[in-house]
Amino acid sequence: MSALLHDISLPLDSDLPLWPGSPGIRSTQLMSIGRGDAANVTQLSLDVHSGTHVDAPRHFIDTGSSVDELGLDPFVGPAVVVDTGSAREITASVLADVSIPQDAERLLLRTANSSQRTGRAFDEDYAALTPDGAQWLLGRFDLKLMGIDYLSIQRYADPPDVHRSLLGSGVAILEGLRLTDVSPGAYELVCLPLRLIGAEGAPARAILMARNGENA
Amino acid sequence: MSALLHDISLPLDSDLPLWPGSPGIRSTQLMSIGRGDAANVTQLSLDVHSGTHVDAPRHFIDTGSSVDELGLDPFVGPAVVVDTGSAREITASVLADVSIPQDAERLLLRTANSSQRTGRAFDEDYAALTPDGAQWLLGRFDLKLMGIDYLSIQRYADPPDVHRSLLGSGVAILEGLRLTDVSPGAYELVCLPLRLIGAEGAPARAILMARNGENA
Repeated sequence: MSALLHDISLPLDSDLPLWPGSPGIRSTQLMSIGRGDAANVTQLSLDVHSGTHVDAPRHFIDTGSSVDELGLDPFVGPAVVVDTGSAREITASVLADVSIPQDAERLLLRTANSSQRTGRAFDEDYAALTPDGAQWLLGRFDLKLMGIDYLSIQRYADPPDVHRSLLGSGVAILEGLRLTDVSPGAYELVCLPLRLIGAEGAPARAILMARNGENA
Repeated sequence: MSALLHDISLPLDSDLPLWPGSPGIRSTQLMSIGRGDAANVTQLSLDVHSGTHVDAPRHFIDTGSSVDELGLDPFVGPAVVVDTGSAREITASVLADVSIPQDAERLLLRTANSSQRTGRAFDEDYAALTPDGAQWLLGRFDLKLMGIDYLSIQRYADPPDVHRSLLGSGVAILEGLRLTDVSPGAYELVCLPLRLIGAEGAPARAILMARNGENA
């Protein structure tokens, strides 16, 4: 199975770009064989929106569902990867030029971020969905999940309208994807966020599997 | 797909049984809509061996592979769930009475823990694999992964021989499974640990999917 499996999760280490103000990821050794303990044991501390992660409605809507309440249906099943080329602003116009199947349920945007973003430093000018792009998608598709290849689905300086409109319409958000090596096309997505009770989001590992030999 | 999907991960909340000495799972609010912030943002801190989690060789072998170095092959593919009944000590003798397919690669033990352990308090007398049980399995099967339905694959008072023999033989360990509602049989396992670079283990979410309509 492994030859047909794409790991689309960011490695969690000190090279990970961090959202401004985020305390990032810290590991400490609770136990260490090198210090004479019987085992190595790591304590991990992270903002749950670090690296590859899921946003639930509660991230921006205080009465909205938490990540555990979403269940796994938004995160497991057929998914489509589309390439939005060199655009930094993923507008309705950009999306209208991309071929999106009418029955798309889980839509992953492979943007300029995948070809241009490789460094540790956070870049405010990342490619992201605009409010009119989000409205265009919500008006045309019955989406369960939207994913993107940087730390936010919306532009850095925008108010949280894109998050609110997607989450308020029942669309889960998957951010921080690593799509560099993934070709556009149809896949089976398995994205498994940690089962954090009551949280507004969760770190996740996500994979794409080829469907019937496609995109292998 | 959801009707055929079993979430075998423990909910991560304050009811989770903790290994003695573990600091457990702590959530703090970095941002809070209720306090006037634009969003809810949680900071999570946990011992990576809390709840449903993976052990890599480095947990007990200082020069062994870290969890990221294992890749996903041990964690994604055909798996067998077997029921070991009421035994607290999963010995060679107990295992010899269980029907394990000769080609089993990923073996999940559904033990007395699944029927008897429901509380928050840690129970030192949980059902687990004995050293002779581990040797019996290693001598008969070409395993990639062993899983169990409590926080450790080995008994509480044992030295770490079971961990060391499994991990030293290339068998990844998956602990803290929730198998209460899962019938014995053949499944597809997808266990996705966080992609923690260099760590000896990682929290994970794991699911079982029915194979060709079996165990639906």
